[in-house]
Amino acid sequence: MLSIKNPLFIKRTLCSSLHLQPIRRVSIKTTIISDKDAEKSNDVEFITHPLFPHPVFDQKDCESIEVTHREPRTIGDKIAHNGILFFRSSFDLVTGYKKPHTPEQLAHGFKGTRYEMTAGKWLTRCIFLESVAGVPGMVAAFLRHLHSIRLLKRDKAWIETLLDEAYNERMHLLTFMKIGKPSWFTRFIIYVGQGVFCNIFFLVYLMNPRYCHRFVGYLEEEAVETYTHMIHDLDANKFPELNKLNVPEIAIQYWPKLTKESTMRDLILRIRADESKHREVNHTLANLDQKSDRNPFALQVETDKPQPENGLKVTRPEGWERSDIVLSNEK
Amino acid sequence: MLSIKNPLFIKRTLCSSLHLQPIRRVSIKTTIISDKDAEKSNDVEFITHPLFPHPVFDQKDCESIEVTHREPRTIGDKIAHNGILFFRSSFDLVTGYKKPHTPEQLAHGFKGTRYEMTAGKWLTRCIFLESVAGVPGMVAAFLRHLHSIRLLKRDKAWIETLLDEAYNERMHLLTFMKIGKPSWFTRFIIYVGQGVFCNIFFLVYLMNPRYCHRFVGYLEEEAVETYTHMIHDLDANKFPELNKLNVPEIAIQYWPKLTKESTMRDLILRIRADESKHREVNHTLANLDQKSDRNPFALQVETDKPQPENGLKVTRPEGWERSDIVLSNEK
Ligand SMILES: [Fe+2]
Ligand SMILES: [Fe+2]
Ligand SMILES: [Fe+2]
Ligand SMILES: [Fe+2]
Repeated sequence: MLSIKNPLFIKRTLCSSLHLQPIRRVSIKTTIISDKDAEKSNDVEFITHPLFPHPVFDQKDCESIEVTHREPRTIGDKIAHNGILFFRSSFDLVTGYKKPHTPEQLAHGFKGTRYEMTAGKWLTRCIFLESVAGVPGMVAAFLRHLHSIRLLKRDKAWIETLLDEAYNERMHLLTFMKIGKPSWFTRFIIYVGQGVFCNIFFLVYLMNPRYCHRFVGYLEEEAVETYTHMIHDLDANKFPELNKLNVPEIAIQYWPKLTKESTMRDLILRIRADESKHREVNHTLANLDQKSDRNPFALQVETDKPQPENGLKVTRPEGWERSDIVLSNEK
Repeated sequence: MLSIKNPLFIKRTLCSSLHLQPIRRVSIKTTIISDKDAEKSNDVEFITHPLFPHPVFDQKDCESIEVTHREPRTIGDKIAHNGILFFRSSFDLVTGYKKPHTPEQLAHGFKGTRYEMTAGKWLTRCIFLESVAGVPGMVAAFLRHLHSIRLLKRDKAWIETLLDEAYNERMHLLTFMKIGKPSWFTRFIIYVGQGVFCNIFFLVYLMNPRYCHRFVGYLEEEAVETYTHMIHDLDANKFPELNKLNVPEIAIQYWPKLTKESTMRDLILRIRADESKHREVNHTLANLDQKSDRNPFALQVETDKPQPENGLKVTRPEGWERSDIVLSNEK
């Protein structure tokens, strides 16, 4: 999401300065994989146990995920939030997407304008977002692992949740890859985009991990909003070609409760629920002492107070405040 | 193991060029944590489920791990092997360690020379080695994760085994940290050493992952040899202070079959067995097509032929040849 704009802008500038029309074939569209293609590409031969088994989410809990926003409090929060807003609006502008702000806009969907969504545009958007979303958790886990073995200190289970997040995003991506086939130009942008985003995120995480978790928290707020919009469009049957698709085998193996009978809507509901957990996790991690606090999602303590957990039963979408977290066993 | 020599040499050169004697307090010794210290530092409050549960190893299988060597075949193999030999001999020279080559050397242990081992020297060696050993698996997993989400392609389960290896090495390290307290100078060398080794390994892995797995395979051959020597010394009761230690709580939680009654020897036996699996895994991965082959340790197929697995029952210490691995389901 963060760096798609650069290659596109460069492309345009290049073309116009050379007095050339952009090549017609350059397209960010994604084509839906038809059943015939699916059979060919349906590499289910090696599907095996998920590396990080997915917690069980109830359908009802998935339905009730809400768009939320944590009010920025510190200057760091504001920088993180504005950073996300900037990148998001650039990405939206370039790819021709507009957030619906009124019920009319939501229902009407900018019909006839360049902001009208299509099934292909939704899939491009999802694939691009998920490819970017897999970076932060892995970078953070990598750096915290090296930190632990370099300083000869335990990590207090942050790595576990971060790796799980990275894996979860990669599963989102691989699932979408069974549904849509992105154009070579989308692939190119993803390739270049990772090079830019990963290096920046890596360097900033080295310097200020708290800021990075807040940034991801805000990114996930946007992800929840985007998927909520998509679920609305699926409910309104705007894209019958998406609603009639089968859920790919890889998703059935990964998410508990998905079956051969599940719909695209069931899948997106679960992906949105995952994003809402990432939102909660990262806002919470940003509230903690990065060096000494336990990761309360993975390291449990004995206490009667409600504490963070991996399911959807007890959640705080805007993040748990540090003062609400029991930092050591009460004995 | 790879980069300890540099800071030490720099130190010496600096000191001699300044006509200074090395500061007496500079020491690479590790002091054994006495019970009183252990109580203080025994941060067992948060011990929880291992991120990657350890497979069950039988005591008998652990006892029968052997020192093995895969004959280098390609030029890459030879470079990898010579690289390891070079770094190892430099490390041995600087830290005052000599591989025993005859039964007499093994029994006598270079008594009275600077190569005589002490409990503290063993612990320094283990801590340093384990700190370095945690790097390759994490670097490889990180790069393969990014590769997968950048090219929108599945990984075929390599990441799983690589992360498990990195976690396993980190558990070795954290276990040793409950037994010995390294000097600040050892800590400093570890810190600098990681900076050098991690960056080099990262760059080489980007360019030639096969070579890197072979390199780790040879590194692990040396690790098995070192721990075999240590087990011999423990059996000969050369360091009663080590033999009378309790196995730390973190190790009891991690390795199945370790209990409060387990000895230091039981622990080192298990660590050696882990290294022997890393040796087998990395020599095998080096034999595979880095981009298209499944990781046979994590992605199982249906077949009657013996195939790689995570336990100690079916092993090939010199690595499985690609031709012996069933690369897709026989249907
Ligand atoms: Fe996602
Ligand atoms: Fe996410
Ligand atoms: Fe190790
Ligand atoms: Fe190892």
